[in-house]
Order: sequence, then structure tokens, then C-alpha cells
Amino acid sequence: MNTPGSLPSEGLAAGLGEHGLIDLIRSRLSPAPPDLIVGPGDDAAIVRPDRGALQILTTDALVEGVHFDLRFSSPADVGHKALAVNLSDVAAMGGVPRFALLSLMLPAACTRANVEGLLDGLIGLAERSKVAIAGGNITRSPGPLVVDVTLTGSARPRRFLTRDAGRAGDRLYVSGAIGAAAVGLAWFQAQAAAGRGVLEPPADPGLAECLERHRRPEPRTRLGLLLGRMRAASACMDLSDGLADAVRQVAAASGTGALVDAARLPIHPAAARWFASHGIDPVQRALGAGDDYELLFAVSAKVKGRFRAAARLARGLPLTHIGELTSEPGVRLVTEDGVESELPPGFVHF
Amino acid sequence: MNTPGSLPSEGLAAGLGEHGLIDLIRSRLSPAPPDLIVGPGDDAAIVRPDRGALQILTTDALVEGVHFDLRFSSPADVGHKALAVNLSDVAAMGGVPRFALLSLMLPAACTRANVEGLLDGLIGLAERSKVAIAGGNITRSPGPLVVDVTLTGSARPRRFLTRDAGRAGDRLYVSGAIGAAAVGLAWFQAQAAAGRGVLEPPADPGLAECLERHRRPEPRTRLGLLLGRMRAASACMDLSDGLADAVRQVAAASGTGALVDAARLPIHPAAARWFASHGIDPVQRALGAGDDYELLFAVSAKVKGRFRAAARLARGLPLTHIGELTSEPGVRLVTEDGVESELPPGFVHF
Repeated sequence: MNTPGSLPSEGLAAGLGEHGLIDLIRSRLSPAPPDLIVGPGDDAAIVRPDRGALQILTTDALVEGVHFDLRFSSPADVGHKALAVNLSDVAAMGGVPRFALLSLMLPAACTRANVEGLLDGLIGLAERSKVAIAGGNITRSPGPLVVDVTLTGSARPRRFLTRDAGRAGDRLYVSGAIGAAAVGLAWFQAQAAAGRGVLEPPADPGLAECLERHRRPEPRTRLGLLLGRMRAASACMDLSDGLADAVRQVAAASGTGALVDAARLPIHPAAARWFASHGIDPVQRALGAGDDYELLFAVSAKVKGRFRAAARLARGLPLTHIGELTSEPGVRLVTEDGVESELPPGFVHF
Repeated sequence: MNTPGSLPSEGLAAGLGEHGLIDLIRSRLSPAPPDLIVGPGDDAAIVRPDRGALQILTTDALVEGVHFDLRFSSPADVGHKALAVNLSDVAAMGGVPRFALLSLMLPAACTRANVEGLLDGLIGLAERSKVAIAGGNITRSPGPLVVDVTLTGSARPRRFLTRDAGRAGDRLYVSGAIGAAAVGLAWFQAQAAAGRGVLEPPADPGLAECLERHRRPEPRTRLGLLLGRMRAASACMDLSDGLADAVRQVAAASGTGALVDAARLPIHPAAARWFASHGIDPVQRALGAGDDYELLFAVSAKVKGRFRAAARLARGLPLTHIGELTSEPGVRLVTEDGVESELPPGFVHF
């Protein structure tokens, strides 16, 4: 989870970086017990309860000043997004979301209306997603507002999706459109920097969509569930840290390379226009843009039929073939004129 | 979860207070689905996976400046305590702790040594408690260090403990000793206020125990599990917000009154001495002191035999009979000379 455009702070944990911090933690853990089916390192954990279905557990926090700015997002937007980012993780595992815990850290200036707004957004999405809020915790915060959500999900054995199950030759697909959330945030920041209001929506409906995508991402709950339940994908992960990062991670975890076709990328049309009008290369920027809670997944030729069936059930959500996993190592981008280059790096948190 | 002695901030959420905030949230939730066995309002949630054992889910955060002070606690102490407070919640439900998710919010000044220390404390306790770290999340914090842990536990149907299952006539018991953590914190604060060092331990070994209790509370994992598994208690909850608060909550949830015998309270001897030497009434202060992660539980006459058997298995942990649940409403304290008064209020978070 990140907010593209927010400057990552320097020097945290003596330059370890996010992956270094995660590696540090993993290196310190005991060997996983047999009932921890998927532990740290994927979008969420999968554990085996004593009998029956597997249970998915995930947690993701939104921190004021890092992931949201209350000038741009309402408390309801924040509540929605705090659950959405967790739903996206459960979707990326192919699970059915079940129970949420809500951990709130509230600054002294937080009003009752703020808390009610936050609940509006969170509970509204929970109800649409058939998620029950099972508990949580409230504490005061001497600093920013923090909304930390834990979500459980369930999945049947062998019907979940990890990022390490891709094979060379699998096609890579991405859902929906990319780059929209980044442009939404950039628009808010440009308006604020110019001293203009941010509450009046832009006239361009495509740009308005980008703002909405930043404020209220729609997790791909149904798609993830279909891909998992129908065993229609090999590897899967969500695009919280951008498409380039996701391709890199799926390829690395699967022990493959990857080739992405620049011309195929489903860049949101309004975002592409915005990038172009600001002199930014749309492909490079869209590949590095975080906060698009779309799914990247790999499909092997063997399951092509099941994938087509799942795609038909995805209610019109576009699923775009953007490239392949390759036996040749390296994560490359090929342009229309056949020029190959390395994929740009993803968003860096620290 | 609170830190006694830290001043609660005024005015949060327009004076709603913590219970008001919880009520507000509960009033906004949809009716619980049948597989949400225990929802918000108890120490933790209990959910029914598709088949098999029940799963307990809980989350509790430690926030720098609210729950800990890095002058008094090492990062390892904080890591230990962040898991301990969650283990205490699972113990209070009578469950076996299983999987933890670790959500970290790290300020830019946080060093690698800080993170390693934190993991030392957390993972050390996780290993002793047979808890697997199943995942988590890391983000930067523009404010305080936050360690938010989610813990799952399991329990068999009808073998878990809620706070609402007490009946008039049940005896009230408390584990271990109370007041120690509050005195530990008060000692640190007095040392710091006087410009004296806090790293040299006090000569009094009892007082040193109090410091340790503040920094590294020992959750009553085994006791909670025994009480739940052996059906040796009716109601149970932990003392995160103090004994008076716990008695009030168990009585209110169970629809009973309660009578607590001041002379029976197991006040930690060094804490009692410290209170007396500072002109503080030990009983009043110990009743209101939070941060003692002991268990309060109710035992009906019918299960006396099972309770004795569980107590024998509790490895020497003292279990003190401190009073009764009553059919007469009200939550009262009776002193040695027979004077009755209302129980003092518990700790107030906001």
C-alpha cells in the first residue's frame, strides 16, 4: 500500500528499505508450522483451521499524511479505502472475504462527524462485500489518524492464488485500467498547490473518474474469487504498488522472467491524456503508479477454457493480455517498434 | 488497553468517550450473521469457520506516547507487550492462540536496531506461546511508532469464555496480583521527573518486579485456556482497564450486581508499600489501575470441582476469591469493617 506522489522518507531503518525490512522480519521467524499454508511475503496469509476451509488473514493500514490527505478525501472515502485495500489483498488470494477487525487511532481533534463519516464509508463497502465487522480496537493518537483493518477470507484447498505459481509461457493479464488513481492524486495536489479548491469536480468526466479511483478504489473481489474458485489463473497479486512492481514480484516468486508489451497496457484514457499534457511518458508513469487496486494474474494455456469462463462471469470488467512470463530471466518492456528495455522500478515506500 | 498515568485527552469525538464510540460503531453495524458467534463488545471476536473449530480474532495497538515511552521501555519490551496484550484477550476468551499479523508504523527516526529489538521481544513471546506470525504490513509514520497486532485463536464450541455468562451467586476470582504495572510506570515517571536515570533498577526486588510488569506483562494464556477447555468458569475478561472496570463490565454484561471484598484483593506487596508510602489508598488505586493483564472470572458452585482441577493445572499461579456476582444490582466494595461503597470507576481512555 502506498500513495504515489508522497515522498518516501529517507534513512528509515538505516536504509534497509521496505523489502529489506520484510526480509529482516522473515529471516527472524521460526519455520512455519504445517497449518500456515502461506505465510509472510504474499498479499495475505493462508492458515488452515483445525478442519474445513482455509482461512485468509490480511492487514493493511491507512495513515494520515502517508496514504491520505483529508483535504482531498472525506472521512467516508478513508473508511471505504481502508477496507478496499484489504479486500484487494483477499481478492488477490482468490478468497471470499469474511470478517474484518477495525483498529482506529484517533487524534484529539477528530470529531464525532469524522468518525461517523469513516464508518459510513467502511460499513457501506463491508455490506456490499458481505463482510462482517467482527471487532477491533480504538485508541487515541498523539499524531495522525490511523485506520488499520484486518480482514479474513476463506478459500477451499487448492483453490487459492499465490504470486509464486506462474510458469514460463503463462500469459499475463491485468484487470480494469491503470494510472487513474495516480492522476487523481496528482490533480488534487496540483489544485492545492495552485491555491484552487479541490471540492469542485473537474469538467472532464474521465478525470472525475480518476479522482474517484484515488478516493474510492473498487477492489476486484468478484474477479479474484472467480479466478481462485475456478482455478482459472496460476499466479495472482494486486497492484497496490504498481504494475511494474507486481510483474517483478510475480516473476521473481515464480522463478521466471517476464515480457510486457507497452502497446497493450490498459492505461486509463483520461490518465493517458493527463500524462501527455504534462509532458510525462504515459507508459513509464502508468507502470510505476501505485494505488491501482487492479489484479495482475498469469494464465497457462492449459486453463484457457476455464479462464474464458471466469472472464465471462466477471460482469464486463476488462481483462487485458499485457505480456508473458518467460523462461529467459529479466523483466522487460517491449515497445510497438520492437525496442526492449528493463521495466521501470516500482514505488519505493521508504 | 491503556497506560494508567497517561492523561487521557479531552474532547475527542466531541466528548463521546470510548464506550460512546464503541456503542456508536455497534449501532451502525448490520445484524451479525449466524457464523459471527461473538462480535464487537467482548475481549475478542469468535467466528465459525465453515466447519470445525471456532476461530478467535483480536487486535490491539500500542502507540508511542499513549501506551509506551521509549525512555522507560526498550523496543524489545514494546514488541513483547504488543503481542502480550493480544494474548491476554485470547486467554480471556478461553482460546488457544494461533496466528498473529504484525502491522508496523515506523517513524523516519526508527533505526534497524529498534526494529530488531522490537522483533526480539515479539518473536520471543510468540515462540514461547506457540503463535505463528502469519503476515502483516509495514508503513512509515509521520508521527509516533505504532505496533498493531492481530491475533487469532481457536476454541471448541461451548468451550470459550465471554463476559456475559456470569450468574448471581458465582464467585469472582482474579489471577496473580494487581497494581504492580501501575506502580512500575509511576516509578519510571517519578525518576524521569526528578531527572534521575531509569536504567538502574531499584534495589527493592519487589519494585523491580513492578517495573517488569509494566514493561513485559505475562499474559495468562495457560489459565485462560484451562478455564475455557475445562468449562471451569462462567464469565471471564482480562484486566487491561483495571479490576474495577472488569467487575463492572462482567456484571453489566451478565445482568447481575457484584460485591468485591477489599480485604481479599491480591494487591502486589511492593505496590501496596509504594502506594502507602505515597499517601495513596492502595485499595482504591489498585482497583482503578490498568495494564495488569490478569484475568477476572466467575465460577458457579456447579463447576467448583472442575475449577479446582483447572487451578491445580495453573502451575502455581495464585487465583484469589475476591467477591461474588449478586442478584442485587450495583457494583459495590465492602471493607473489613463492613462499610459498603460503590466501586471506583475504571480508567477512561478519552
